[in-house]
Amino acid sequence: MSKIITLDEIKQILPSIDLIPIIEQGFVAYSEQRCVVPPVGELSFENPPADVHIKYGYIKDDDFYIIKVASGFYDNPKSGLPSSNGLMLLFSSKTGELIATLLDEGYLTDVRTGVAGAIAAKHLAPQIVNSIGIVGTGTQAHMQLRYLAPVIDCRKLQILGRTNDTIDSFREYAEMLGFEVSVANSGDEVLNTCNLVVTTTPSTKPLLDLENYTGNGIHITAVGSDTPVKQELTERSLLRADLLVADSRSQCESRGEIHHAIEAGLISPNDIFELGHLINGNSVGRKNDQQISICDLTGVAVQDIQIAKAVYDATPK
Amino acid sequence: MSKIITLDEIKQILPSIDLIPIIEQGFVAYSEQRCVVPPVGELSFENPPADVHIKYGYIKDDDFYIIKVASGFYDNPKSGLPSSNGLMLLFSSKTGELIATLLDEGYLTDVRTGVAGAIAAKHLAPQIVNSIGIVGTGTQAHMQLRYLAPVIDCRKLQILGRTNDTIDSFREYAEMLGFEVSVANSGDEVLNTCNLVVTTTPSTKPLLDLENYTGNGIHITAVGSDTPVKQELTERSLLRADLLVADSRSQCESRGEIHHAIEAGLISPNDIFELGHLINGNSVGRKNDQQISICDLTGVAVQDIQIAKAVYDATPK
Repeated sequence: MSKIITLDEIKQILPSIDLIPIIEQGFVAYSEQRCVVPPVGELSFENPPADVHIKYGYIKDDDFYIIKVASGFYDNPKSGLPSSNGLMLLFSSKTGELIATLLDEGYLTDVRTGVAGAIAAKHLAPQIVNSIGIVGTGTQAHMQLRYLAPVIDCRKLQILGRTNDTIDSFREYAEMLGFEVSVANSGDEVLNTCNLVVTTTPSTKPLLDLENYTGNGIHITAVGSDTPVKQELTERSLLRADLLVADSRSQCESRGEIHHAIEAGLISPNDIFELGHLINGNSVGRKNDQQISICDLTGVAVQDIQIAKAVYDATPK
Repeated sequence: MSKIITLDEIKQILPSIDLIPIIEQGFVAYSEQRCVVPPVGELSFENPPADVHIKYGYIKDDDFYIIKVASGFYDNPKSGLPSSNGLMLLFSSKTGELIATLLDEGYLTDVRTGVAGAIAAKHLAPQIVNSIGIVGTGTQAHMQLRYLAPVIDCRKLQILGRTNDTIDSFREYAEMLGFEVSVANSGDEVLNTCNLVVTTTPSTKPLLDLENYTGNGIHITAVGSDTPVKQELTERSLLRADLLVADSRSQCESRGEIHHAIEAGLISPNDIFELGHLINGNSVGRKNDQQISICDLTGVAVQDIQIAKAVYDATPK
């Protein structure tokens, strides 16, 4: 009988796992084309409105293949349920047997996205970070901060949010992690104050614009936009970057920040480096703290593969 | 916590469920375009060789959506494991929550395919069946006979198989079900002896040819071919049919028996009726026992949806 791992168990196990090298290995495998990751399956619902995404794949010569189901049922909050849900299935890639069901309710997707942000910062942030800026105050803002904390020494944080309630609760969380928190009034203020910025919102209108940026070097990780319509940075911001990085070059041509700038004719896909190639040393990253770098994360299934395996491996058998 | 339903539990529950009307309703929903069934997801493996298919969808206004994982790991028998495996996940289409995991190991796919054969026979077989012919002796041969038995009065069976061992064990099973069994030496013998024939093999070379058929009316259900390459009937057999039926017209244009005949330029997609339209009365079926009818079943996800729901509904809560 296969193993069932509940969300509570997952939350207990995760702190004991060093996720950064595990997800890094995933990005490297992806960029070295050692992953088999077919196109995402999509199922849409009208009544109530909902979307289900099915991501699946494996790393060649690995022992497992993974299927992840992630759903958004947008009316759920009306009845007190979270809109996100989902699970991950871990199968043997040698026999096809189901090994484990991770009933993570979408939590591992949030975590692996947070870890990806930390990896982007590890490889792309200026050596000396004077202040971290986070745009957005939701689940992913919390995740980003949680996984940034161990890789970035800086404990100054600036938040840009829309409502006082969510700003307050995110501030509380950040203070609990040991951050000294200020609240920004605008995207420009964040860009002028911080040299490591993470955007985490589902906005469809740009919130940050590097056009008039006069600072002394910055890295921005854009996490929020993972569809063709979401956008957190102006297209011209990407033109200002000395270094443009994506988790998946092919995927960023159709979704996320980069594709908006490509469609506007401002940049070419050839301008983009892949995170996995920075990690394995095939591409050169930031050259000095004065550069402007942008990393566009749209999420790739190899992150799910890696985190599912890691949780399973760490679960008592 | 969602429900886990094991294969043993599924096998205990199934005999209490009248599957025919349930799968019939599925075919009708499919033909009336009340199903949302995106393209099948496919994952291939080289070492060891394997294929995984992910089918998913729902019937509009239904309470559930279903994801089915079905795998074939072709080296498994070398280590004493069945090559097929799989499971079905039943989610709420109102909230996205996982309701049940059916650990059926591929069994429900075998069953729903058997039931589809019985439905085809119910709607297309001559009124008086003088002998049933089954081509093939494997799992699906057993399933077809098991689900035919309650809908067809005839208890004469002719088997066409390749090896004595499998013929003997299928004969034993059929006798247990009350059939009087004979063994055929050729496809022609089956066609000349039986007026209800079911083909259940993974053959890629035609086993039956109606070209020189001189009998007095027959129905053939072709179950085995569900890919672009498998084929159990010669293309010209389809030209002899007075009535051509498929579970899915669109799917039969690219896989199964019909697409071979379409590609050979012998028939047109417009010659095909859908099983769901025969069931709901929108299309007229067989007019008399003297006609030749062929039903090509390639398998549609709505069958999985219906059987998963039925098993869940019948499971003690």
